[in-house]
Amino acid sequence: MKLSARNVIEGKVVAVTKGVTTAHVKIEIANGCLITSSITNESVDDLGLAIGDTVSAIIKSSDVIIGK
Amino acid sequence: MKLSARNVIEGKVVAVTKGVTTAHVKIEIANGCLITSSITNESVDDLGLAIGDTVSAIIKSSDVIIGK
Amino acid sequence: MKLSARNVIEGKVVAVTKGVTTAHVKIEIANGCLITSSITNESVDDLGLAIGDTVSAIIKSSDVIIGK
Amino acid sequence: MKLSARNVIEGKVVAVTKGVTTAHVKIEIANGCLITSSITNESVDDLGLAIGDTVSAIIKSSDVIIGK
Amino acid sequence: MKLSARNVIEGKVVAVTKGVTTAHVKIEIANGCLITSSITNESVDDLGLAIGDTVSAIIKSSDVIIGK
Amino acid sequence: MKLSARNVIEGKVVAVTKGVTTAHVKIEIANGCLITSSITNESVDDLGLAIGDTVSAIIKSSDVIIGK
Repeated sequence: MKLSARNVIEGKVVAVTKGVTTAHVKIEIANGCLITSSITNESVDDLGLAIGDTVSAIIKSSDVIIGK
Repeated sequence: MKLSARNVIEGKVVAVTKGVTTAHVKIEIANGCLITSSITNESVDDLGLAIGDTVSAIIKSSDVIIGK
Repeated sequence: MKLSARNVIEGKVVAVTKGVTTAHVKIEIANGCLITSSITNESVDDLGLAIGDTVSAIIKSSDVIIGK
Repeated sequence: MKLSARNVIEGKVVAVTKGVTTAHVKIEIANGCLITSSITNESVDDLGLAIGDTVSAIIKSSDVIIGK
Repeated sequence: MKLSARNVIEGKVVAVTKGVTTAHVKIEIANGCLITSSITNESVDDLGLAIGDTVSAIIKSSDVIIGK
Repeated sequence: MKLSARNVIEGKVVAVTKGVTTAHVKIEIANGCLITSSITNESVDDLGLAIGDTVSAIIKSSDVIIGK
């Protein structure tokens, strides 16, 4: 499935930390460069996310703020 | 200024494409790994964004969808 | 590709209106029930969107406000 | 109150699942077509949400990603 | 209509600047404190927005980043 | 650091309510006018947020819905 979101960045799951309802998933997208996603625990189970998985971090370009 | 957003990723501006009202800014965050941000032309001028600038791509973890 | 977003709703494209930089795409997800998405013209071309296409409207549950 | 959001879709609450801090509310917007919203437990109480309520699912068009 | 969004802040429209597809609307919510909203020109016309109107600025609490 | 977000509104922290994973932070931006932000408990600790702190509420203009 192709997506309209401009950022579909491939990477490897390096950490999955489940909270009570929300999980923080760290994805290594390039040597040492991490992106953190917070999704529901339900989504983690639904996707069967585990460390080492190859996944895509999907981010709309309008959700990227620039700081300078 | 420190931010509550979990993803504050440093990178280099490699392209600034102004539309009529919205600009697309490409940021290289790691060797070859690009993130696209769409901000207003006003913001581009306000920040004085130019190719080669070191900037931060700021993304809330709740705005990162995971695909597997 | 499976997504962490809770809402992946299938429907048919019934209208694609390109502005100067942004396009409005109307998707019929159930008899007469429309969802409007605004994406970049670039995305419309990239996905080759046309009336009659079967697509998914992808919405994070945290982006759905409830009014009563 | 009229809203600038392009998607104000009427439907019926069919499930309210409270987590520790966040609740998942399922809204049936057309025969069998469900939309899931995640809001705070506080909002559920504030709106007095209950199964069978007629509500609106409010979604900005820029928050709708398209997949094809 | 009551909303699940935690921030429903009343104010007065002090400027409406239409671009080609997107309009920037400035709302004065307290003496001198302005909030800027960018909505489609279609929404401006749909709501019949004009300077002096009393409106609500509606913002989900999860869309407010904190900087310190 | 200057930001592309149009709304960077200064205010004072008047309440920090930590849930199990998410904290609600109330910021007084003008005499009596409050903005609520929900961020992770981790962010609260990371920023060392406390009542009385001067902070910025950062909101993209595209995240502000208008109601009339």
